[in-house]
Amino acid sequence: MTDVVGRLRAVLGDHVHDDADALARHRRDHWVLSELGDLEGTLGEPPLAVAEPGSSEEVAAVLQACRAGGTPVVPFGGGSGVCGAVVAPPGSVVLSTARLDGLIDLEREDLRASFRAGTQGLAAEQQLAEQGLTLGHWPQSIELSTVGGWVATRASGQFSTGYGSIEDLVLGLEVVLAGGEILRLPAHARAATGPDLRQLFLGSEGTLGIVTEVTLSVRPEAPARRKQAWHFADFAAGLEALRGLLAAGVRAPVLRLYDAPESQRHFAELCPEGRAMLLLLHEGAEPLLGAEAALARACCERAGGAEGAEEAVDHWLEHRNRVPGFREFLERGIIVDTIEVTSPWSRAAALYEAVTASLREIEGMLLATGHASHHYRSGTGLYFTFAARPEQASLRETYERCWDRTLRATLAAGGAISHHHGIGRVRREALGKELGPEGVALLRSLKQALDPEGLLNPGALIPDARPAEATTP
Amino acid sequence: MTDVVGRLRAVLGDHVHDDADALARHRRDHWVLSELGDLEGTLGEPPLAVAEPGSSEEVAAVLQACRAGGTPVVPFGGGSGVCGAVVAPPGSVVLSTARLDGLIDLEREDLRASFRAGTQGLAAEQQLAEQGLTLGHWPQSIELSTVGGWVATRASGQFSTGYGSIEDLVLGLEVVLAGGEILRLPAHARAATGPDLRQLFLGSEGTLGIVTEVTLSVRPEAPARRKQAWHFADFAAGLEALRGLLAAGVRAPVLRLYDAPESQRHFAELCPEGRAMLLLLHEGAEPLLGAEAALARACCERAGGAEGAEEAVDHWLEHRNRVPGFREFLERGIIVDTIEVTSPWSRAAALYEAVTASLREIEGMLLATGHASHHYRSGTGLYFTFAARPEQASLRETYERCWDRTLRATLAAGGAISHHHGIGRVRREALGKELGPEGVALLRSLKQALDPEGLLNPGALIPDARPAEATTP
Repeated sequence: MTDVVGRLRAVLGDHVHDDADALARHRRDHWVLSELGDLEGTLGEPPLAVAEPGSSEEVAAVLQACRAGGTPVVPFGGGSGVCGAVVAPPGSVVLSTARLDGLIDLEREDLRASFRAGTQGLAAEQQLAEQGLTLGHWPQSIELSTVGGWVATRASGQFSTGYGSIEDLVLGLEVVLAGGEILRLPAHARAATGPDLRQLFLGSEGTLGIVTEVTLSVRPEAPARRKQAWHFADFAAGLEALRGLLAAGVRAPVLRLYDAPESQRHFAELCPEGRAMLLLLHEGAEPLLGAEAALARACCERAGGAEGAEEAVDHWLEHRNRVPGFREFLERGIIVDTIEVTSPWSRAAALYEAVTASLREIEGMLLATGHASHHYRSGTGLYFTFAARPEQASLRETYERCWDRTLRATLAAGGAISHHHGIGRVRREALGKELGPEGVALLRSLKQALDPEGLLNPGALIPDARPAEATTP
Repeated sequence: MTDVVGRLRAVLGDHVHDDADALARHRRDHWVLSELGDLEGTLGEPPLAVAEPGSSEEVAAVLQACRAGGTPVVPFGGGSGVCGAVVAPPGSVVLSTARLDGLIDLEREDLRASFRAGTQGLAAEQQLAEQGLTLGHWPQSIELSTVGGWVATRASGQFSTGYGSIEDLVLGLEVVLAGGEILRLPAHARAATGPDLRQLFLGSEGTLGIVTEVTLSVRPEAPARRKQAWHFADFAAGLEALRGLLAAGVRAPVLRLYDAPESQRHFAELCPEGRAMLLLLHEGAEPLLGAEAALARACCERAGGAEGAEEAVDHWLEHRNRVPGFREFLERGIIVDTIEVTSPWSRAAALYEAVTASLREIEGMLLATGHASHHYRSGTGLYFTFAARPEQASLRETYERCWDRTLRATLAAGGAISHHHGIGRVRREALGKELGPEGVALLRSLKQALDPEGLLNPGALIPDARPAEATTP
């Protein structure tokens, strides 16, 4: 096995690391069960090495070197995932995209920009901002995650209701396939040239190829903003307002509805107790900007909303990316996580009620709350947060119970088991239920076609027959 | 071979046709080379039979019956394609979706509607209109094409700039796979649950599975419209105006720019000679509607446009789906066709000039003109029309020369070889150039994974090593 490391060094020189620190930093993402395993010292043997190729050709060489030894390869972008897509098994090699960095090309007239896959999200936005441009893609992980990671996980940003999720922004891709072939899918505004091959890699979580370059659609920075805050009798009333906003054609980049507990948690001074807060952030140029704000106001009034202080939007803008780490909770015996799903509008209020009520029944539950922050004409993303300090059950058992109840309720409501965090390991079994046996068979046949030896990120995403203990930390 | 027909009759009873009329009506689409072959009597032997299954289970049974005999299956929707995706070879069975008809379910709150694949486009819109809803998908073929055909060909409608193309509308799909498995991909507003499997079938042109049911996103019918017409010094100036409109966030459903010859052809009275006409149709509710129209007006003025009579928009609305058939031209020794491609904005004017100039050099060329009618922040669809009455070359040679020059120029400009008509047979070779060897290999590996025996619509879409004579009429 270790001759793989030798072969990698022959290709990459010093850009192969096998010191304990590098292995510890790259063996996993932020999945809370990995965090827990780390705390408990149960993660087991680390991977063999971390390889940092500096070009697509070097990525191909890494894959070929690993293939020759039958060595699994775990791609690693920013490591900001929360579902366990990165759990590098013993004997594997982690392929970090850290050196595949930077803006390659900016085509101003065509409003598109090409980045190497390892470009860190905020750096990408900053390079565009110098030109008065933006992607409009602002995941909470923007300071950690990478452009390639966004593609691999089908990411959504906080402004997605107006500007789209990553699949709406990707124009072209370069991907290195399992056999080392470098595939370039050209950047087109739109095409009817067979199936959209880019879509194989969007959401593939490193199991079908390594994304090395991404061409994204960009837009001029919005010249102005308008902010509004409204509050509603309850979460269901707020959802009804949102449904109306979307049906009326309001595409404000930010529309965030919090249930009553979250409204208190985040905006105590700014929202009457027991009410559900809705934040609106409009962006653009007059006269469209003012027209959209006026239309939104009419929709909120019609839905029984009461206007609140727009300072709530500023407060959100300032604090939006500050999230406490899981670790500090775990150390206090508390298990915390978030679960986001997609629901049709017609089931959203009932699904919210069913999930929060069901979570609150679990022993030691401290809080089970929700918000809705990504919307479409046909449905919305529901984002649940729970925290529990169980006395009888273990943290792990409690955790699994929460996930199981939430995903079961989502499947029963005809929802999607993930809106934007992805599958990783925590949702792998539920994905099988969502896709059904025919869908799972199709996904496996794609895996077989693209990675017949099964070396790309084994254990993530694809429901299969491996024993669970080999794929969880 | 004929025992296939017996097996089909055992499953479908009277819904298997092998009379000359049924075979003639289902053996091909509207591809002009098929039209020419028909006129010249060179189409050769027809397929064995036309099977009309009435349910997904019957579609599965048809595929199984054909598979048992190694019989190729050619799916047939409305037959309105113009690129030769439907050319049923001798010994094949045509699977018509005609009996898979009608609205299955309308979920008003979720703004989604499920149709059987064979539902004719205008019938689908009419059923929705009764509820005050619309898809907003209006291909010129709306009276001929089917919902399933839209998916199989990655169709765009005339209102796509505002309302999206078919891939933006498809929420859920049911597909029968080559082995007869019925795959249901659930309707979600958005999901991060692995690669988007629906995308395998969008644009697959019947080569990867048979679409049997489609869930589409619908929208309330727009309460009001605004119309504008502007004219510009030339096509390039009009393109520049369009680029500005899209960058500014104008998403009017219809923005149509015609070059000077087409402006004269369609709007003689309404457009000064030598000028390029731009039609704008805005839809929606106040105050957004008025704001968008005002912003568009400012963009057109800034780009040097002069305002024209909005009657031009009414004229287009009335005449938009009237197209003369190819046949009447062929009978007069004239070959006519249209070729649509996608270009980045930065290359669009030059590509338009290069293609029209190059076509005009061809012997016997009567006209070579263009318009642009589907737009994106990063580029636009260019739609070329040519007509030639060659004296020396054959109609077929002239035709191939036109296509070859147009697609070569498009590839050289970094454009996509089809915006929305698809690949069929006429672009199959060029698709190989656009995708490159790695892309072709990937497409073939998908074909191998989904249809290992190669029985689904052989000869369409996928560049391969078959001799050309087996796949052209």
